Amino acid sequence: MKLSVEDLQDVGRGAAFLGTGGGGDPYIGRMLATHAIREYGMPEIIDVEALDDDAAVYTIAMLGAPTVLAEKAACGDDVDLALSRMEKYTGRKADAIIPIEIGGVNSMLPIMAAARTGLPLVDADGMGRAFPEIQMVSFNIYGVSCTPLVMTDEHLNSLVVETGHAKRAEDLERVASIEMGCSVILSSYPMTGRQVKETAVRQTMTLALEIGRAIRRGRRADNPVGELSRYLATTPYYSHCRVLFDGKVVDLRRETTQGFARGHCTLQALDGGAGEMEVIFQNEHLIAREDGRVRAMVPDLICMVDSDTAEPVPVEALKYGQRLKVMGVSAPPILRTPEALEIIGPQAFGLNETFVPVEEL
Amino acid sequence: MKLSVEDLQDVGRGAAFLGTGGGGDPYIGRMLATHAIREYGMPEIIDVEALDDDAAVYTIAMLGAPTVLAEKAACGDDVDLALSRMEKYTGRKADAIIPIEIGGVNSMLPIMAAARTGLPLVDADGMGRAFPEIQMVSFNIYGVSCTPLVMTDEHLNSLVVETGHAKRAEDLERVASIEMGCSVILSSYPMTGRQVKETAVRQTMTLALEIGRAIRRGRRADNPVGELSRYLATTPYYSHCRVLFDGKVVDLRRETTQGFARGHCTLQALDGGAGEMEVIFQNEHLIAREDGRVRAMVPDLICMVDSDTAEPVPVEALKYGQRLKVMGVSAPPILRTPEALEIIGPQAFGLNETFVPVEEL
Repeated sequence: MKLSVEDLQDVGRGAAFLGTGGGGDPYIGRMLATHAIREYGMPEIIDVEALDDDAAVYTIAMLGAPTVLAEKAACGDDVDLALSRMEKYTGRKADAIIPIEIGGVNSMLPIMAAARTGLPLVDADGMGRAFPEIQMVSFNIYGVSCTPLVMTDEHLNSLVVETGHAKRAEDLERVASIEMGCSVILSSYPMTGRQVKETAVRQTMTLALEIGRAIRRGRRADNPVGELSRYLATTPYYSHCRVLFDGKVVDLRRETTQGFARGHCTLQALDGGAGEMEVIFQNEHLIAREDGRVRAMVPDLICMVDSDTAEPVPVEALKYGQRLKVMGVSAPPILRTPEALEIIGPQAFGLNETFVPVEEL
Repeated sequence: MKLSVEDLQDVGRGAAFLGTGGGGDPYIGRMLATHAIREYGMPEIIDVEALDDDAAVYTIAMLGAPTVLAEKAACGDDVDLALSRMEKYTGRKADAIIPIEIGGVNSMLPIMAAARTGLPLVDADGMGRAFPEIQMVSFNIYGVSCTPLVMTDEHLNSLVVETGHAKRAEDLERVASIEMGCSVILSSYPMTGRQVKETAVRQTMTLALEIGRAIRRGRRADNPVGELSRYLATTPYYSHCRVLFDGKVVDLRRETTQGFARGHCTLQALDGGAGEMEVIFQNEHLIAREDGRVRAMVPDLICMVDSDTAEPVPVEALKYGQRLKVMGVSAPPILRTPEALEIIGPQAFGLNETFVPVEEL
């Protein structure tokens, strides 16, 4: 598959939707990717099955608080440095790049990296959405080590972490990323082609593109949320999808603390009814409650879109008075297994709830 | 030179004196070094001039708050891992080990490392005393890069920092060391033999040994502080040496904060006079004022010893009511140059004073 520069807008919008409120603004990433593509050409996007079993595949991403990513983007040299440090440390040249996270800006960073290096980009990721922490990824859930993990910043400082525990790596890179200015480039989870085949969430770059296209199509037909829902129902992962709430923002609390954007957003029904929905987030939306009753929870996707245009609205763009639809979308099945829920279920985020799929709530 | 296990006690006491209140309790280090020597044999200690110009020389140290070092010591595997990670990262096997800091526990860690690896230990260091931060070292002052810098912990997690700025490395390793439990093993400032010859503070292992011996000799003659002062006057670095104050501790404030032991200690004259001395520390003693008048300041050494036995008393062992002599000792000349004072002078520690040598105060 080859994307066109025009496709990037659809991929970005789809990735923003899959960001479930977080993942960083793909607009920034799209600017970076577009710039890289104009200079270096569009990278080839390959299916997981096209990888040799012993290929060396490295992830590339931005890490930090989305509120900061918007102000301090990648410079390019930091991306190249992250990859070359990873290659130096593992002793293996990269054969391909894979996104760790399709949701948000990290759909775009790998496109930028692949364009700059001429490496193919794998049509897959480790989340099928966005998550706030580095251990919250299918690669880790199914046994791939997240280290050596390389971080670089725009001053070309670098840092390599090696540990047997993904949560330890998370704790270390989190404090380091805060010290490096709350926004860094990350290369982690060095994998063989076989490991990618065994653990990745497949075809998510294609899905992001098609989600973006569905929204665009829907706008022409003046029914973007409807068209989006119709498309999602046809996908292998996101087929359980419903509009949980239609309302306006009446309360919003958002702090950038401990390296994350944390807070909650309350919406009131537009019809003047008493109904309220509260959504709690840590970079991404974690749980949606309607009048105290849970309607959707992590790892299922809770996505807020503009009521009229279906434009995905990230946490950092939430505003008082905004009219939004809150959508609940099923997570890919490999994120709903018992071993997955230990790492990305509600309790992994400090919530008391036990996971119930959105289609059963 | 070969040390005996019995010499370690003298080296440790000398190193505690050169620790100027900080550097970590060499007792802990001596236990570690003794254990390693019993298992692996005593390492060879070589003069700087014995190094080939292109030899690969790596530092090894513990890093953290002395108050924590005392409770969470090195396990040995973490020391080996730090060296092997450094070798992997630079691509050069070590030819020798050099202490970064002769003061305190870091006189002993390199002995332990040299014993475990069979490498020779260089009779020199980068401070001729102890300092709290990684950029505060003659290697950095005279142009050696402090990175790649490797940190390891007792769980064998590792971290490699690479940056062009020693203060940046300090900031990064400091937050990481706090996250790793406030006490880690550090290998940094990879150097050639030539760089060691150009930048190291020479013969400081020998000096620590002789300082310890002088105190022991003095005790037999019932005049340890006198004998210590007499010996220091014969050394190439510490020849300006005086007892600034003789008193008892009447006020003490000590906090472990931001990865350091910070605070101040006030002593009152024993003769019942109104005289008071206040000493401020950040791991190490920074400045000593007698009734508001500066008597000694960093980089000169401010050393507190037991009034009767001349036992060096580190910050973490200070107690209300203790009878202490405060000694002011000249720093090695290469730590008193204008380029050195920019990095280790009083203003580098946030003090307002301009450096004046102890012999002129």
